[in-house]
Amino acid sequence: MGKEEIILDINVTEKALELVSKKKFQELKTLFSMLNPTDVAQIFEEIPYEGDTLPILFRILPKEMASDVFIEMDNDCQAALIKAFTDKELKDVLDELFVDDAVDLIEEMPAGVVKRILRNTDPETRRVINQILQYPDDSAGSIMTTEYVRLEKEMTVEQAFARIKLTGADKETIYTCFVTDERRLLLGLITVRQLLLAERTEILGDIMETNIISVDTFEDKEAAAQILSKYDFSVVPVVDKEKRLVGIITFDDALDVMEEEATEDIAKMSAVTPTDKPYLKTGVFETWKSRVPWLLLLMISATFTGLIITSFESALASYVILTAYIPMLMDTGGNSGSQASVTIIRALSLGDVEFSDLPRIIWKEIRVAVLCGGTLAVANFAKLMLFDQIGMAVSLVVCGTMLVTVIVAKFVGCTLPLLANKIGFDPTVMASPFITTIVDAISLFIYFTIATSVLGL
Amino acid sequence: MGKEEIILDINVTEKALELVSKKKFQELKTLFSMLNPTDVAQIFEEIPYEGDTLPILFRILPKEMASDVFIEMDNDCQAALIKAFTDKELKDVLDELFVDDAVDLIEEMPAGVVKRILRNTDPETRRVINQILQYPDDSAGSIMTTEYVRLEKEMTVEQAFARIKLTGADKETIYTCFVTDERRLLLGLITVRQLLLAERTEILGDIMETNIISVDTFEDKEAAAQILSKYDFSVVPVVDKEKRLVGIITFDDALDVMEEEATEDIAKMSAVTPTDKPYLKTGVFETWKSRVPWLLLLMISATFTGLIITSFESALASYVILTAYIPMLMDTGGNSGSQASVTIIRALSLGDVEFSDLPRIIWKEIRVAVLCGGTLAVANFAKLMLFDQIGMAVSLVVCGTMLVTVIVAKFVGCTLPLLANKIGFDPTVMASPFITTIVDAISLFIYFTIATSVLGL
Repeated sequence: MGKEEIILDINVTEKALELVSKKKFQELKTLFSMLNPTDVAQIFEEIPYEGDTLPILFRILPKEMASDVFIEMDNDCQAALIKAFTDKELKDVLDELFVDDAVDLIEEMPAGVVKRILRNTDPETRRVINQILQYPDDSAGSIMTTEYVRLEKEMTVEQAFARIKLTGADKETIYTCFVTDERRLLLGLITVRQLLLAERTEILGDIMETNIISVDTFEDKEAAAQILSKYDFSVVPVVDKEKRLVGIITFDDALDVMEEEATEDIAKMSAVTPTDKPYLKTGVFETWKSRVPWLLLLMISATFTGLIITSFESALASYVILTAYIPMLMDTGGNSGSQASVTIIRALSLGDVEFSDLPRIIWKEIRVAVLCGGTLAVANFAKLMLFDQIGMAVSLVVCGTMLVTVIVAKFVGCTLPLLANKIGFDPTVMASPFITTIVDAISLFIYFTIATSVLGL
Repeated sequence: MGKEEIILDINVTEKALELVSKKKFQELKTLFSMLNPTDVAQIFEEIPYEGDTLPILFRILPKEMASDVFIEMDNDCQAALIKAFTDKELKDVLDELFVDDAVDLIEEMPAGVVKRILRNTDPETRRVINQILQYPDDSAGSIMTTEYVRLEKEMTVEQAFARIKLTGADKETIYTCFVTDERRLLLGLITVRQLLLAERTEILGDIMETNIISVDTFEDKEAAAQILSKYDFSVVPVVDKEKRLVGIITFDDALDVMEEEATEDIAKMSAVTPTDKPYLKTGVFETWKSRVPWLLLLMISATFTGLIITSFESALASYVILTAYIPMLMDTGGNSGSQASVTIIRALSLGDVEFSDLPRIIWKEIRVAVLCGGTLAVANFAKLMLFDQIGMAVSLVVCGTMLVTVIVAKFVGCTLPLLANKIGFDPTVMASPFITTIVDAISLFIYFTIATSVLGL
């Protein structure tokens, strides 16, 4: 966020709250009209939901701004407002929403509120909403909107502009228009830029773009967002199995999806169940619920590591010094494994690698591991001989374990995410915490095996 | 990537390479003209850089497509082509590039190539390129383009359309136009949508949007991208200290920045120095260089944990069973700490929290920690008593340590990233690996302190 903007945010929010408390609604109205809907929504979120301040403030919003402000608020604020709305007010807001925003709203509201929302939308919109709600949660269909400008290939540029003027006001974008036949089969697309630069008498069929990249309604929404990003599109058409145009996805949805997906991936990589609420809006109990199952699972897995120690207890008893290097070996193994796994997980989600690259990836990781493990072993050997002075034999055991552990850790780290992905599991779960737990057990096993044979325990 | 699209990619690339080997250039030309420049660029990347296939193929590209294909290629491919270009060809390509793309190209090319590029750009473009190159690497100025449509507030809608037609062809976007005075002070903006819906005789000054959200040239580029995402803008103006318009940032650059920054954050969170190359294009030596310094640093830090073990060696010798629970306690501590730290790091980068939230965050994390630690301690106690049967005293030591460790880990995990951010360090570095190393030492210290006092060692 820009520095100036933060200053603006704080000052404006404080100013607005002050005006609210003094009930200076006329001044508030002026203030709101100078702001962007997103900023006004942030002010609304600061106001207590109880009492009638929230609906009063909403009623003083400039009419053309109201629904934009509404859709930018957080869900609690929306729910509080809907509760306070008359049916007429609710209908007015809903009429102004784009279909994809209405769907988002319905997905987040409690069941009782949803019923009231659907009762107050016109039948055609309700039909479209219900249709979009049927697409799976992570599909392109679930985030598309059906409000696009449809043109016909026989139209002239002049006629196209007339159609855009007539129907464009309530479309999410008018800059890319879609040419379909009467069965809604997608024939081509044409941008307002092309229309502006063309002669008014030209026929759309002659100038439209016919090499169209589209996504299927059941395509993963992240994949759809990546197509927008890869091709620098501002919009991508969504088609059904019969190639009929059913909707569009715009760049702002793609930005949201990419931010959401990165947040989700990062959460899963650190063994947290993702939530879509901001940190400070998530309750303590909710946060506990998103974290404790993973901690329990990982704690139970870590007992296997304990079992390995127990089974080598006699060796440890005679060489207690070996215990001192357990944390370093476990940590280094875990870190080496995470480096590989997280790199591969990210490469997978960016589409840079796929399962068929497995041999190349393993070959690369093994070479990197030999270099990394070798460097660490040599550095460590120098330290052990010079500072710790624990003797050649134990030093060799520790450094040998280091080298082997790093190689095994990188191998496991790069292989598991690809395997998980191949069998349809979420590869992000194979990040640091799981890899660490697995590599811990392996590294201790290697440690004690090398120790017992070298030290003759 | 869409399923269909993958099929298209593989088939088309194979087909193209076959046509190349058979030197069927006419057919190739037809094939290329049916593809998107991004896809053609991918085919080029598969062709060996040695020999003259690459320049020959480039020469058969449809003229209007050539520079679009060029800018989508990877840097090695671009360098190979520039080497093969005549000055005339290089100039033709450069003339078609947007300024921001030319800057990206120059930033990635070796010095010799850069000289040749600058020699072949016209003086005005060269001046603009040099100006953009002076902005810091991560600033909004470094990713902006200077090609926008400039209008004047006295113009009518009719005149605005005429100006757009005249100057719009080589602008990165024409859909948002910027109204400035003669000193380039930004007065307002107006979209083609507004222009289309307005009367032809209306004056821009009367209908333009004057509440403008802009970014400063020195603003962080990630913050600029987040403004586009937050307000659903397709473009944001970049202004200098005197509020003069110097450039614009478009949504496609914002998408790239957000993808890049997420990849960078994820790399840093797993203790890898970020590179901007795809995984399979990064060499073994380069990968080693990005990973080994962190492993070394963390290995050295882990020796402190070893020192703690050494100093409690006598206690361990009399109770070897204590060793068996070291991995579980270390892992659980590390995981609890990472959950908190990574959540806070992400919240910081999304702008959800800031340093002043520290007390709230700590208070929340402590409560979550008591819940999580309590759950784990109880589950663990049951397991220790029922399965391990190690006696009440040791069980209490292990479970007491568990509870205290989780609380300390969450506290450290949520505090360090915020402190790092406050003093101007990169908070992402305070993710799993560092938190794990710190928490390891703390958890063992707690373990042995509790053990020595409870067991009377």
